[in-house]
Amino acid sequence: MGKKRGARHRVPQANQKSTQDTTRVSSETAVRSSPSAFWLYGVHAARAALANPRRRVRRAVVSERMAAEFAKPLSGHPFEIAGPDTISRMLPSGAVHQGVALLCEPLAGLDLDEVLSAAPAGRRIVAVLDQITDPHNEGAILRSAAAFGVTAIIVQDRHAPPESGALAKAASGALDRVPRVAVVNIARALEELGRLDFWRVALALDAEAPLSEAAAPGDIALALGAEGSGLRRLVRERCDAAAFIPVASTMESLNVSNAAAIAFYELRRADIGPAGA
Amino acid sequence: MGKKRGARHRVPQANQKSTQDTTRVSSETAVRSSPSAFWLYGVHAARAALANPRRRVRRAVVSERMAAEFAKPLSGHPFEIAGPDTISRMLPSGAVHQGVALLCEPLAGLDLDEVLSAAPAGRRIVAVLDQITDPHNEGAILRSAAAFGVTAIIVQDRHAPPESGALAKAASGALDRVPRVAVVNIARALEELGRLDFWRVALALDAEAPLSEAAAPGDIALALGAEGSGLRRLVRERCDAAAFIPVASTMESLNVSNAAAIAFYELRRADIGPAGA
Repeated sequence: MGKKRGARHRVPQANQKSTQDTTRVSSETAVRSSPSAFWLYGVHAARAALANPRRRVRRAVVSERMAAEFAKPLSGHPFEIAGPDTISRMLPSGAVHQGVALLCEPLAGLDLDEVLSAAPAGRRIVAVLDQITDPHNEGAILRSAAAFGVTAIIVQDRHAPPESGALAKAASGALDRVPRVAVVNIARALEELGRLDFWRVALALDAEAPLSEAAAPGDIALALGAEGSGLRRLVRERCDAAAFIPVASTMESLNVSNAAAIAFYELRRADIGPAGA
Repeated sequence: MGKKRGARHRVPQANQKSTQDTTRVSSETAVRSSPSAFWLYGVHAARAALANPRRRVRRAVVSERMAAEFAKPLSGHPFEIAGPDTISRMLPSGAVHQGVALLCEPLAGLDLDEVLSAAPAGRRIVAVLDQITDPHNEGAILRSAAAFGVTAIIVQDRHAPPESGALAKAASGALDRVPRVAVVNIARALEELGRLDFWRVALALDAEAPLSEAAAPGDIALALGAEGSGLRRLVRERCDAAAFIPVASTMESLNVSNAAAIAFYELRRADIGPAGA
């Protein structure tokens, strides 16, 4: 975080045109960035952020080469042009920015009921992430969630990674596409989902039924715990069933984002399979 | 790599016992480490490396806390005891070592025919990775391969990540469990698999059939390309069928390790499903 905040004070090398832009950005918007603003980077993540009306972009920096490709997504946004190395120096070390970086505000909080009501027709799938703190894992889960039409991801406010460039990059655009609802209490969110007739499935290594049998028709909430520790007892107790993904006995577990991807696939497979809706 | 090599020359802080061990290690084995030796770290990765008779471990460093847990896996290996921070300084920045680090030689090359002959009875699944260069992605694929009993992973010598701590950590032990065959030419390896009656399936976004329909009974080779560029034409042409994983049209693609996990799951599901063997 220190690096990111520090980076905002560096002015990228800029040609004549972008210097003007920089000036405009600095006077009009940069001063209004909040302390939680973060640099989002990479082509897919940046495109999705610019296409998301809920996302506030404070600064945009693109390479000469990306300026044309981003002319349309950036329309209306002032932007700066900078060399790839200059952009790299603004970002955490090793960030693969592909020539585009946006200083963004985190998204405003979402209400679970509103998100669920706004979902398109068909089976709703909600993934409930219990203390999955690694941004790469959560980002990869968001990406798979987008791929399989998952309605929302629920995370616990205090035990989820904050929005960051790493999270957005791993999500490859899905951070700005899949509603991500941060709640204070995961167990209570599962209670609410139960009242809304979601069938709540805890993914757990020691469950008795494979996921293909534990799922049910209708809306599904899938609870996923951190690798190693798994779901907390209080979270698991709020579920209607527990399920496992059948794996070889010699291997302890799957990576959590791979387990999520398989679970989303299995749940959507059932949708279109012979027993599906 | 520079960091890793440099680290070997630092002597960790050590108590009386471990100082003796250090001396023994230095005189007997450390001088014989090859330039491609690398630090492997993390509990799962280290356990699997020590259990792998093909793996040569040149040095072992554990924290006080891990010494008891690793007493049995390490039996026969001289080892040093060092504080967690000392171990951290020996490793790439940010490495989550959990109190154990091993200086290892990369595994000796494997012969594809031998690996296939040694496979247990039942459907053999081989994953062919075409230019997947990110060690975290390949590591995660290895981990899923172990979980789903994949017979072997084939990579291209010049376009695969070298063995490294990051690869081994992401694989969570699977680097030392799943045979990883490096070949000079991927297309030729697919030709050989064809002669051995493997049904060769290319995973591709623009394929005509979903994976669940493109698979066949019997041995399967699954070719996976890098995100973005996908499979090279010459590799895809060596396959008998192309298949896709059904995803929402708004999302371009899955992360390659998630796609691999889903594909392994789907292929093994067919094994135990109503139409399976």
